[in-house]
Amino acid sequence: MRALVYHEAGKSSWTTVPDPGVRDPGDAVVRVDVTTICGTDLHILKGDVPEVEPGTVLGHEAVGEVVETGPEVRTVRAGDRVLVSCISACGRCRYCREAAYGQCRGGGGWVLGHTIDGTQAEFVRVPFADMSLHPLPGAVRSEDAVLLSDIHPTAYEVGVLKGAVGPGDTVVVVGAGPIGLAAIVAARLFSPERVIVVDPAAGRLRAAREVGADVVADPAEEPERLIEDVTGGMGADVALEAVGIPESFELCTRVVRPGGRVANIGVHGKPVVLHLEKLWPRNVTITTGLVDTFSTPRLLRMLAAGRLTASPLVTHAFGLDRMEEAYGVFSDPGNTGALKVVIRRE
Amino acid sequence: MRALVYHEAGKSSWTTVPDPGVRDPGDAVVRVDVTTICGTDLHILKGDVPEVEPGTVLGHEAVGEVVETGPEVRTVRAGDRVLVSCISACGRCRYCREAAYGQCRGGGGWVLGHTIDGTQAEFVRVPFADMSLHPLPGAVRSEDAVLLSDIHPTAYEVGVLKGAVGPGDTVVVVGAGPIGLAAIVAARLFSPERVIVVDPAAGRLRAAREVGADVVADPAEEPERLIEDVTGGMGADVALEAVGIPESFELCTRVVRPGGRVANIGVHGKPVVLHLEKLWPRNVTITTGLVDTFSTPRLLRMLAAGRLTASPLVTHAFGLDRMEEAYGVFSDPGNTGALKVVIRRE
Amino acid sequence: MRALVYHEAGKSSWTTVPDPGVRDPGDAVVRVDVTTICGTDLHILKGDVPEVEPGTVLGHEAVGEVVETGPEVRTVRAGDRVLVSCISACGRCRYCREAAYGQCRGGGGWVLGHTIDGTQAEFVRVPFADMSLHPLPGAVRSEDAVLLSDIHPTAYEVGVLKGAVGPGDTVVVVGAGPIGLAAIVAARLFSPERVIVVDPAAGRLRAAREVGADVVADPAEEPERLIEDVTGGMGADVALEAVGIPESFELCTRVVRPGGRVANIGVHGKPVVLHLEKLWPRNVTITTGLVDTFSTPRLLRMLAAGRLTASPLVTHAFGLDRMEEAYGVFSDPGNTGALKVVIRRE
Amino acid sequence: MRALVYHEAGKSSWTTVPDPGVRDPGDAVVRVDVTTICGTDLHILKGDVPEVEPGTVLGHEAVGEVVETGPEVRTVRAGDRVLVSCISACGRCRYCREAAYGQCRGGGGWVLGHTIDGTQAEFVRVPFADMSLHPLPGAVRSEDAVLLSDIHPTAYEVGVLKGAVGPGDTVVVVGAGPIGLAAIVAARLFSPERVIVVDPAAGRLRAAREVGADVVADPAEEPERLIEDVTGGMGADVALEAVGIPESFELCTRVVRPGGRVANIGVHGKPVVLHLEKLWPRNVTITTGLVDTFSTPRLLRMLAAGRLTASPLVTHAFGLDRMEEAYGVFSDPGNTGALKVVIRRE
Repeated sequence: MRALVYHEAGKSSWTTVPDPGVRDPGDAVVRVDVTTICGTDLHILKGDVPEVEPGTVLGHEAVGEVVETGPEVRTVRAGDRVLVSCISACGRCRYCREAAYGQCRGGGGWVLGHTIDGTQAEFVRVPFADMSLHPLPGAVRSEDAVLLSDIHPTAYEVGVLKGAVGPGDTVVVVGAGPIGLAAIVAARLFSPERVIVVDPAAGRLRAAREVGADVVADPAEEPERLIEDVTGGMGADVALEAVGIPESFELCTRVVRPGGRVANIGVHGKPVVLHLEKLWPRNVTITTGLVDTFSTPRLLRMLAAGRLTASPLVTHAFGLDRMEEAYGVFSDPGNTGALKVVIRRE
Repeated sequence: MRALVYHEAGKSSWTTVPDPGVRDPGDAVVRVDVTTICGTDLHILKGDVPEVEPGTVLGHEAVGEVVETGPEVRTVRAGDRVLVSCISACGRCRYCREAAYGQCRGGGGWVLGHTIDGTQAEFVRVPFADMSLHPLPGAVRSEDAVLLSDIHPTAYEVGVLKGAVGPGDTVVVVGAGPIGLAAIVAARLFSPERVIVVDPAAGRLRAAREVGADVVADPAEEPERLIEDVTGGMGADVALEAVGIPESFELCTRVVRPGGRVANIGVHGKPVVLHLEKLWPRNVTITTGLVDTFSTPRLLRMLAAGRLTASPLVTHAFGLDRMEEAYGVFSDPGNTGALKVVIRRE
Repeated sequence: MRALVYHEAGKSSWTTVPDPGVRDPGDAVVRVDVTTICGTDLHILKGDVPEVEPGTVLGHEAVGEVVETGPEVRTVRAGDRVLVSCISACGRCRYCREAAYGQCRGGGGWVLGHTIDGTQAEFVRVPFADMSLHPLPGAVRSEDAVLLSDIHPTAYEVGVLKGAVGPGDTVVVVGAGPIGLAAIVAARLFSPERVIVVDPAAGRLRAAREVGADVVADPAEEPERLIEDVTGGMGADVALEAVGIPESFELCTRVVRPGGRVANIGVHGKPVVLHLEKLWPRNVTITTGLVDTFSTPRLLRMLAAGRLTASPLVTHAFGLDRMEEAYGVFSDPGNTGALKVVIRRE
Repeated sequence: MRALVYHEAGKSSWTTVPDPGVRDPGDAVVRVDVTTICGTDLHILKGDVPEVEPGTVLGHEAVGEVVETGPEVRTVRAGDRVLVSCISACGRCRYCREAAYGQCRGGGGWVLGHTIDGTQAEFVRVPFADMSLHPLPGAVRSEDAVLLSDIHPTAYEVGVLKGAVGPGDTVVVVGAGPIGLAAIVAARLFSPERVIVVDPAAGRLRAAREVGADVVADPAEEPERLIEDVTGGMGADVALEAVGIPESFELCTRVVRPGGRVANIGVHGKPVVLHLEKLWPRNVTITTGLVDTFSTPRLLRMLAAGRLTASPLVTHAFGLDRMEEAYGVFSDPGNTGALKVVIRRE
């Protein structure tokens, strides 16, 4: 089959590799109908994620059709259209029993396109299929559902639930890339009074408004003052970090009100400075997290019922054979305006 | 009356000042029977807390007898033996309505010995007396109750509740000074599997064992490895920072397990480094807080019922006129072995 | 002044009574601009609430202007437009400190139009004004705000928060009178997958659809089966009782899924049968509650921001002098189609 | 092998049946070293549990050694000493993913000694072994661990966690049989101010005192008044029903304070009367539940660490061949003083 293979820092190719098959009795093989690219994939390509070995097929998001299952698989079978979760789960370890699948110690967690071959390919082997695949209701479009492999549950669990967004809250989202936009959508589910979005790119701020931002701001234009003004000097109830750089995390800790919550969603490569000399008496809660995807079935029900915004997050679509072009577009959003790009079997 | 007055950085004296009286209709004046010294008082004396103006009487902890009340005071009256909370509360602002009294925006919060005259004196004026004084049950000793002005509710609310200590947890307490010891006592209320305490002072580790530590460690002896060993490689469920320096906070973030909680109790003067490049995927929750004292009535009931350890935290007692000597002993624990010192009217 | 006075079971009149004045130092007197009638007022008129003494002015909902305040009042002053909460709060007792104002033991709780004179009058004395009045933002219409005296916080706190409605849930609301409609509005704030409403009156079901019901049902047409069908045999996540009769409570306990919540909002006059022989192993949570109104400031912010539906709940408006006609219309909804009626100073 | 077989209402025998073997690939067969009898077993014998078919081996509690495992079993193997949980869990259904194993829809839940053969036998087949067996630490005695098959997690999860027992609470436990005693032990883990136990049997009240009750009362001697007195007229924070009859549930609802919680643990055969006409405004939470056993690993850690009281709940021990005698003793506690009885392979 054809697949996007990582060779070394800066080098990858859409090439021919052996077809995957069932290896362990809980595996399923899925034919990929739609996949997409994550910011994490770009980090891998740069060589920032050293545990990815040369030869690995990238990608951890997909919708497709089950073509083969191992003897232990019970909940899906060949022919089922399924969502491939970015998180695999052994289902038996301490973390899985607490639905913290992202922390699985039994061989799951984030493995696809990371420690085993992933979804940017014609076929993918998914371990622990019963816990890692979700059958799709007929009414759901594959191009929408693929956003539930990773960014929607991430925004909902790691952003909005950990940040405890509630009705009437002021929510600040720093970063209006795909995950920031998903965070706006997820925050809206809890009826905040207002969502304020900070990003330097005018195009992303426009997209932010489309999916529910009330106020948008450029980080160069003193967003602290703006947030102070609109909240009567109080500060934000919740600040969601959706970039992954020290500046944006530190902005979150400056704009949050006493008693508020900072939920970090971004993937960070460097330490940040935490101003405990100011924060120690402020009753602030800071959370981090890899998505667990415990909410995926719930979000799928909402998508099927038309209660979860998906399509405005997708700006481009490509056929599978144009995978490298899709990477080019996705990795240059300043010029292409790309948010999520979907890549489809044709 | 006599009182301990702050003059400037490094200079204070036990001297004569005018007696306080009722100034606002919600005030009460309390005759101080027992007071104590807090680590924060030492910071003030060094000049680290610039909002404390010269001439301020220090101290924010006391038990005493009400001698006068303003016309709005309803819940206490002259002759009542009361606990003076370190936090005053207007009772009307947004934060007070959420029982976040430490964040009061109506003139309360931590004001005693900070922005108004405090408790290290023969008498103290307490604003918002209805919300800031707690009548004491007869069975409770004043020398025990005074620990509920500040350190017991701080350890309970900011440490143990925010850290969500639960049955069977492994709890690490970094720092075995008075607040760390109170944190051990508070953690024990929730039946953790074990409490591990880290402190360089052998005497403090002995005290830690006396109030309930199961395992003690010197920070120089690789406490990370010890914690990893006793938890089977998992890490601590909860780490409580009870020192207020970067090293101890950063230790907490290293020893906490994925999904665990770091509750900062210490008063910090410097920023810390937060290793988000390691912590971002670990589902960690970090909290800070000034005590709100919403738990004080509950803790008082427990103290009266014999269910809260207090006296082992007190190592020295002085008469009021020996206030300066008490400061000398309290500020040199390496030589004196001092934990909490009580200062009594005689 | 003119006021609606309760004389005895079945007898009341719009009549002249002495103007109220400040009696306690925390009182405010409010000129009533808008008031409304609650189902509870009808119970009182029937003689079902024996603690209401003859001569009492009825009503516990109003928006108006402060005309006089006692010396202890700090947060409002003459000239302020305010919401009168149905719950007064001493602010000092154990329950008030936990924001459980409805359970106030210091002379507050539900007192207006119950144990003291109420709001269906030209003026009303409000005790504990600081904790019981809420200044209104300019942008809010008084006719909308008056729904925040009682039914909106009741639906939100006692219904939706206690019932823990969440994104993707199936919520059943039994009863589509004013409080049931408010419960639909409140449930929508949390983005349930669907809201199913059960009521025998076709007009009320139409109103239910207008404020957000997805599915409506007549209780005579086997709503249990309908709910089972739409939830794939699972049952409802949350059932909200908004009538106050045994049949509707028992329906709630039949349609809730294992692990689900039944939140009782209705005012009951008779015991109900709880089928513990069926429910004991089903992990069901049942809650009751008098509104505490801790959410009123939050709901007011949402109303001002256009994020809380109010006006569709109001079907009729009258001048103050037509109070008795308003009662006639409100108490005969089968013929008049009345939901909430507002009564305005003209 | 020998096993206790249910024949029909009133008729059972210790008799010879075929040895169980692995039937499904996730099964394990366990040699029973210790089992015990539950009140539910007595209900089955009376014919009260019609889904138990004649010929079923009774019992859902055991400690033993794994002798055989199916090909899908990963976490235990032959030779392991294990706890058999009363709840089996498929691990894949919606309820299992939320750790609500008691509600499993995939063939688990309470099946042992109910819908399949149970543990009162020399050997038992346990389905879904990975999720239903717990390896035992060496330090734990089998006679203690067997209490974690059912009553300890039931008391902890269904009683104390659902009842949200906290430090300083007043907890009432109605019923001092084995499950009531386990509830006392579990409540003590959260440091309540006092535990009040109501039971008519003097011997059980003595046992209650031994495991941590502070106050005991005969239900004939006005426990309502006693509870009112000791709580200063407030009522209990939490009431735990541990009998399973209407009188004791209704007592719980009478003694709980406004804002308090009633957690039903008892197995009920009849409906109860719920006095909503009194309870509707009292902010009461009532919960029911079948144990999910999500807490079993945590409780096992606590037992191994010496932090969970077990042995005082066991009054009698028998060899396996004296199973019928054990039933006789257990079913006549008035004369025998039996609490839990353990039955051991010899």
